Amino acid sequence: MTHIPYGMVGGGPGAFIGDVHRKAIQMDGLATLRAGSFSRDSEKSKAHGRALGIESDRLYSDYRQMAQQESERSDGIKFVVVVTPNSTHYEICRAFLKKGIHVVCDKPLTFTVEESEELERLSREQDLLFGVTYTYTGYPAVKEMRRMVSDGLLGKIRFVNGEYAQQWLANPVDESSPLAPWRTDPTVSGTSNCLGDIGSHVENLVATITGLRIERVCARLDSLVEGRTLDDNVSVMVDYVGGAKGLYWTSQIAFGYDNMLSIRIFGEKGSLAWCQEDPDHFTFTPNGAPKQIFSRGRDTFAPEAQRYNRIPAGHPEGVYEAFANIYKSFVEALAKRLDGKRLVEEDLDFPSVSEGLDGVRFIERCVESSKNGSVWVDMH
Amino acid sequence: MTHIPYGMVGGGPGAFIGDVHRKAIQMDGLATLRAGSFSRDSEKSKAHGRALGIESDRLYSDYRQMAQQESERSDGIKFVVVVTPNSTHYEICRAFLKKGIHVVCDKPLTFTVEESEELERLSREQDLLFGVTYTYTGYPAVKEMRRMVSDGLLGKIRFVNGEYAQQWLANPVDESSPLAPWRTDPTVSGTSNCLGDIGSHVENLVATITGLRIERVCARLDSLVEGRTLDDNVSVMVDYVGGAKGLYWTSQIAFGYDNMLSIRIFGEKGSLAWCQEDPDHFTFTPNGAPKQIFSRGRDTFAPEAQRYNRIPAGHPEGVYEAFANIYKSFVEALAKRLDGKRLVEEDLDFPSVSEGLDGVRFIERCVESSKNGSVWVDMH
Amino acid sequence: MTHIPYGMVGGGPGAFIGDVHRKAIQMDGLATLRAGSFSRDSEKSKAHGRALGIESDRLYSDYRQMAQQESERSDGIKFVVVVTPNSTHYEICRAFLKKGIHVVCDKPLTFTVEESEELERLSREQDLLFGVTYTYTGYPAVKEMRRMVSDGLLGKIRFVNGEYAQQWLANPVDESSPLAPWRTDPTVSGTSNCLGDIGSHVENLVATITGLRIERVCARLDSLVEGRTLDDNVSVMVDYVGGAKGLYWTSQIAFGYDNMLSIRIFGEKGSLAWCQEDPDHFTFTPNGAPKQIFSRGRDTFAPEAQRYNRIPAGHPEGVYEAFANIYKSFVEALAKRLDGKRLVEEDLDFPSVSEGLDGVRFIERCVESSKNGSVWVDMH
Amino acid sequence: MTHIPYGMVGGGPGAFIGDVHRKAIQMDGLATLRAGSFSRDSEKSKAHGRALGIESDRLYSDYRQMAQQESERSDGIKFVVVVTPNSTHYEICRAFLKKGIHVVCDKPLTFTVEESEELERLSREQDLLFGVTYTYTGYPAVKEMRRMVSDGLLGKIRFVNGEYAQQWLANPVDESSPLAPWRTDPTVSGTSNCLGDIGSHVENLVATITGLRIERVCARLDSLVEGRTLDDNVSVMVDYVGGAKGLYWTSQIAFGYDNMLSIRIFGEKGSLAWCQEDPDHFTFTPNGAPKQIFSRGRDTFAPEAQRYNRIPAGHPEGVYEAFANIYKSFVEALAKRLDGKRLVEEDLDFPSVSEGLDGVRFIERCVESSKNGSVWVDMH
Repeated sequence: MTHIPYGMVGGGPGAFIGDVHRKAIQMDGLATLRAGSFSRDSEKSKAHGRALGIESDRLYSDYRQMAQQESERSDGIKFVVVVTPNSTHYEICRAFLKKGIHVVCDKPLTFTVEESEELERLSREQDLLFGVTYTYTGYPAVKEMRRMVSDGLLGKIRFVNGEYAQQWLANPVDESSPLAPWRTDPTVSGTSNCLGDIGSHVENLVATITGLRIERVCARLDSLVEGRTLDDNVSVMVDYVGGAKGLYWTSQIAFGYDNMLSIRIFGEKGSLAWCQEDPDHFTFTPNGAPKQIFSRGRDTFAPEAQRYNRIPAGHPEGVYEAFANIYKSFVEALAKRLDGKRLVEEDLDFPSVSEGLDGVRFIERCVESSKNGSVWVDMH
Repeated sequence: MTHIPYGMVGGGPGAFIGDVHRKAIQMDGLATLRAGSFSRDSEKSKAHGRALGIESDRLYSDYRQMAQQESERSDGIKFVVVVTPNSTHYEICRAFLKKGIHVVCDKPLTFTVEESEELERLSREQDLLFGVTYTYTGYPAVKEMRRMVSDGLLGKIRFVNGEYAQQWLANPVDESSPLAPWRTDPTVSGTSNCLGDIGSHVENLVATITGLRIERVCARLDSLVEGRTLDDNVSVMVDYVGGAKGLYWTSQIAFGYDNMLSIRIFGEKGSLAWCQEDPDHFTFTPNGAPKQIFSRGRDTFAPEAQRYNRIPAGHPEGVYEAFANIYKSFVEALAKRLDGKRLVEEDLDFPSVSEGLDGVRFIERCVESSKNGSVWVDMH
Repeated sequence: MTHIPYGMVGGGPGAFIGDVHRKAIQMDGLATLRAGSFSRDSEKSKAHGRALGIESDRLYSDYRQMAQQESERSDGIKFVVVVTPNSTHYEICRAFLKKGIHVVCDKPLTFTVEESEELERLSREQDLLFGVTYTYTGYPAVKEMRRMVSDGLLGKIRFVNGEYAQQWLANPVDESSPLAPWRTDPTVSGTSNCLGDIGSHVENLVATITGLRIERVCARLDSLVEGRTLDDNVSVMVDYVGGAKGLYWTSQIAFGYDNMLSIRIFGEKGSLAWCQEDPDHFTFTPNGAPKQIFSRGRDTFAPEAQRYNRIPAGHPEGVYEAFANIYKSFVEALAKRLDGKRLVEEDLDFPSVSEGLDGVRFIERCVESSKNGSVWVDMH
Repeated sequence: MTHIPYGMVGGGPGAFIGDVHRKAIQMDGLATLRAGSFSRDSEKSKAHGRALGIESDRLYSDYRQMAQQESERSDGIKFVVVVTPNSTHYEICRAFLKKGIHVVCDKPLTFTVEESEELERLSREQDLLFGVTYTYTGYPAVKEMRRMVSDGLLGKIRFVNGEYAQQWLANPVDESSPLAPWRTDPTVSGTSNCLGDIGSHVENLVATITGLRIERVCARLDSLVEGRTLDDNVSVMVDYVGGAKGLYWTSQIAFGYDNMLSIRIFGEKGSLAWCQEDPDHFTFTPNGAPKQIFSRGRDTFAPEAQRYNRIPAGHPEGVYEAFANIYKSFVEALAKRLDGKRLVEEDLDFPSVSEGLDGVRFIERCVESSKNGSVWVDMH
């Protein structure tokens, strides 16, 4: 087992999500954190990095310097994890791609479609792996549902209902809170809040499981809490290529819901339903038969889902394990590549820069629809 | 306890819903079936009526004759229950109203807004009670949620998510089936199927619980089963008067769902959620506190809901009891009126011709929106 | 459709359960209340009976007189419903049996095994139908589970877990409450409270669904609320004839539970689980396959269960309908008998005096076990 | 942050649970695996250890040698994790304790009460920390329920219902399977299988949350699968010191259940209910108020539970995180001790050798009860 060296940009002191990424990577012990630019404040970056066991000369205050120097070292990092504010994803990812370093970046990938398109182009030209951490696609149940759809168990898909309900922004955010700019300042969050943050998860999860491509959208972005600038509740009617229809609802004002990402898929031959808060189970209702509850580990999943199973049925796996699965796929693919082997499609079992681009385009089109009075807007 | 005599139009042999109405009325023993026009076939009507214990001279093949003769008898029916196909509601209700007989009619009330407006006008002019059997409003839990909203426990309402999912039309309907015309023939079902049949329940239930008025809608009516003319899946974005927003989804192709009418209401101070398939319970999540599960009978409902409680907590009440509650309210109000007393607002605790009109208008506007490419259409 | 005349003993003013029985019978319109002894207070009995539409000369203050006179009338009642306090069941049922009148009695049937044995003997000798209203056996889902077990879908049964949890006696009962004697006075309630009231439902429901006979029991009756004489919480280990095992728990101090009667049956080939608070559904887990959720009305039940289906799937049926099903079976069997036809086993699809006797024996043996320090006691 | 060096005995190639322990420890990065005796086969042990990154001279085929040599090194391991078959726990733990090395051992701790008593005595005499990995006590929800009971929110506890249902042994185990001896051979598994394996989790979890001490038990160990020697289904009636009562059921033949450990606690003032398959939530029903659903992360837990919170509400934490919490508490306490600080009670927030001893005593008493015909047996 080789331990692939990796670096991180962002994820400094107090940055919760950086710690989640590190623990997720650490879970399978396939990659080791060897370099980092954790904060623009040089002292903070160094102190944080040392506490993480990184050697001083590989702690950087400037990500450009990090990309440069790590690309020159014989023991340099093989991939970088970008967990900075969304507004900076583009330039950071670009810098590492240009130096030939593989990338994993948080979602949403960039502010604009053009930026994501350029990252996609760059990664293709440089022949580099580029993962985007749509966490929820890492659940074994999601993999199994994708397999079932792909195997035709639902027949042609007719309708998809996707929801993502949270309550954590149901009250006005204190202006003095460090989170406030994320929720009120478009220069930090981009053109949307609720849509960009959680709506893109719905878009990505539906696409991952069903393979459906969106043809056009009609969206309404609401700001329902008094005094809020950005959206906190979003409805989207979706037409997919090929005739299927969809309806998405995402909300951050939904008292009673913590993180209720729920996907229901209806086809000619049956339906699937899954909810992120109970990730080990999903239901399958075949035409003319009772609803069945599938349980990760108990009911044999096909090999492409089964390989992500970590512990027997009934021992809950959670979001850390889903996160770890994304990295497991990415790092194993990278290891194979570094061994000089050719990657096949099933190796690339993680959300890529293309999915990242799709997400940014979805956000952009929905914002456009809503700004023009909730009219229909074509995706392409 | 007086037994008020009533009559029925429709509900002949094989007509399932007529039997449900009769059993619902019978449950509280406040009214007795004394006349009927159960079928246009005179022999069938008479045979059916006699089996129900009605005297022969009060069995009619023509509802006009029934309206005429019953209005002339000293022991004539005081109200009529209309459970015929939707296309005939208007003329039948009109005939009885004109003869001074109170009316209860199935929903949707009529085919057109104009027809409903005329029925509303007529009932007002004649000073007659007019109930419309939106069954689900009869559940005690619905009454209690309405009371909680009205008492301000949710604060200003921000968003409503209403769903009604069924699977019974997920397969093509056999053309030779007696149900087929209902699902394919606009002359029988009107301009919509799924929307008119179950979408109007969502519209009514939201209005009943929240008191919100719809300002405009943007709807997409889908026909997702191959070869189907009428809609079997409907999405509606709703703007309410006053700034609240809503999203409705109704479907008859939803494998895995029998009759899943679900309402979720989000306000400034908390949320409510209820599902028709578990009608004795609802959840209330107050701002900053855990979600609470209310149980009919266990957790003291306010008197206006408590009065519909029939049996202690944990002994499920079902749809027959909800139906019976609608009639209980209607017949008790009628009895009070017949006693010469003045009715106050809380007496009129049943869906009236106004709600029926609102439902027809909702259907009409949604159909218009969808036909024009899912554009926004004002309700008024 | 003949309307069989019936009478009632008990169920006077304020007696909740009598009204439930009457409404349950009325639901199918197969029998009509024609006589009654609703109260030992002659005036009360008469007033109550008249309000129910019974003619004065058939309102009795003494059940013996009622049995005598009704048995002599040509239009006399064909069966009597006994809904008096448990302590009086025996003598009342006996009086009517002796006069050749069929009987339906509330459970638990009598105070002692000997009394029940005599009633069983009498009904056999007189060739009379004798129903005992174990309500929960009336649910279509219960009928279907019984059919599945009987058809061998579970293989040999290995273990049964039965629970019945309520919270309504979790607090000390006010001594001045009219309910108090029922909970504290053995001359009213017999030797047990929780066991007799709800434990016997578990015993009966398990027997109904599985057909298992109890060989011996080891029981602990607890009085967990300070100052309470009778039991409010009961645990029973059960050995069945043939080697299967069982565990029953019933409680009336279980905060959080209204009326949670739950049965889980484990066999060699699969398991069944059902809960009375969601009576339209049950789960079936076959060996090696996912858990399946069966839904009354959606998933075709076999004819012996399907015949009790009243309304399509997803329209909840509740406890009134279950009650009505018991009476439907009883009255239809009686009608067939009165028509001079021979009854076959499937006609007798209601809990009989034998089940009533089993229940009383179960109570007696459990009390004996508990009194002797929770030792094992044979049933026979 | 110091990384405390630790060693492992057992957990060699193919030993699933060893890997879970290592990943759980690794999650918080507080301790590092530095030595091991993974297999009695020297070559296997070394190969496995090297793959885990351990230096060759610290890979042992004999745990005695490991205890000796590690205790002599200045950089020797500070604690050892024992994950060998149950029959060997005693001698291995003893060897390390005698060399002054702290211990974490899998459950059940030993085969006999005497062995556990000696380990308890030894750890006290040597003043060493001794953790026993009752995994499920690591869940934040369990910590919070323990806090609520301890704060008196339930009042005096009256009754506890504990269940642990699995289906994985519902079919006869293939004799040739490597698992077979565990299920059939008492020299490997001790006097019980189902009771020892999962029954002890119920015993421990109830004790942890409630603080109740068991006074006596009446148990029935069943072998319900044909040809099985050891128990696969267990019922236990429990009397606690102080008057509370309990009922435990554990089963491995329960089709439909993966790992359904469920605890319900009923007190004078309310009840708590929790299920391991949905570990982030529990319900609390206060006297006279609706049932409340608590959600880890959303509803503020008290600090003693909150400190185990890893990710916001609605992002499921699973069994790996629970496991990690046990080690987090253990390693943090050990670090404090190694820093020369005095440990206070809240530092020792992990199941200790005393709980291990309680578990072994519970198993022994239940086996004794069952062997003697399910009679009552005193715990002490």
